Amino acid sequence: MQQDDPYGIRPGEVAAPLPAAFDAQVYFIGRIRTPWRTRDDCPKNARESDAVCRIEVDARWATALSGIETCSHLLVLYWMHRARRDLVLQAPRHYGEPRGTFALRSPVRPNPIAASVVRLTGVDGTTLSVVGLDCLDGTPLLDLKPYFASTDAVPGAVVGWHAERSG
Amino acid sequence: MQQDDPYGIRPGEVAAPLPAAFDAQVYFIGRIRTPWRTRDDCPKNARESDAVCRIEVDARWATALSGIETCSHLLVLYWMHRARRDLVLQAPRHYGEPRGTFALRSPVRPNPIAASVVRLTGVDGTTLSVVGLDCLDGTPLLDLKPYFASTDAVPGAVVGWHAERSG
Repeated sequence: MQQDDPYGIRPGEVAAPLPAAFDAQVYFIGRIRTPWRTRDDCPKNARESDAVCRIEVDARWATALSGIETCSHLLVLYWMHRARRDLVLQAPRHYGEPRGTFALRSPVRPNPIAASVVRLTGVDGTTLSVVGLDCLDGTPLLDLKPYFASTDAVPGAVVGWHAERSG
Repeated sequence: MQQDDPYGIRPGEVAAPLPAAFDAQVYFIGRIRTPWRTRDDCPKNARESDAVCRIEVDARWATALSGIETCSHLLVLYWMHRARRDLVLQAPRHYGEPRGTFALRSPVRPNPIAASVVRLTGVDGTTLSVVGLDCLDGTPLLDLKPYFASTDAVPGAVVGWHAERSG
């Protein structure tokens, strides 16, 4: 029993039946090392912490890191392995009112894949040092991508429900 | 036989043996409808096209879209189902010199998950209209996330190898 598991259903939350079968499969290509051992320890979002985290890429993929040291920022995809996958309406503790899963960045989603933008501060063999993660220690890594400001940065983007909420 | 399959190995490219087993599984939660039927048709990157594409979300997830209409931009994750997964060094035609897979946005990667930032122009039931995709028609959808400028936008980010290349 995980005492820090916050993934029960809260009032106002709704689950959907999951599909009968999966459609594709992923490899874990490494692990993310952070200072956070429980969900309660984790920062609410990545900008809340300046902690330097480590991304340990499996040796198998060492060559695939070639050139990554020239990137100031990366897009990191990882697998939120402890999240349930069937909620369609969620009421995160810090927001209250239930919202659709696809309007939230919650780990709870049909495919528990997180996307975080990080600043790359160092590369040592197959270990990267980065700032900007907020996940649990030991989180499985799925992918690393160069962050292109030309296509990935939209400073004027608005999440209406979030901008309008009080508090 | 796919006549438009560009996924052979080019000079300078290197493949790695794939792991013996997968680690997790994903659901396709919908399909992406674009004007592009072959890789050659696709724009080289999403900013090259103003085409309005459709994201058709499976009815099962309808409730999970609640609130998404308040977002100006979304992060879309999708599965590049026709890409090989074993290259660690790649020489894309338009770049030439081989680079590591994790320094590229190529569809060829251990987990062929793409992440694109799109502008949301409309929501009609479970169909979204968006601008900013460059993928093949019929591409399977994995996830939709609200794009938060506060954590996702880094206008000053640099991809060094790309900035320095000639042409």
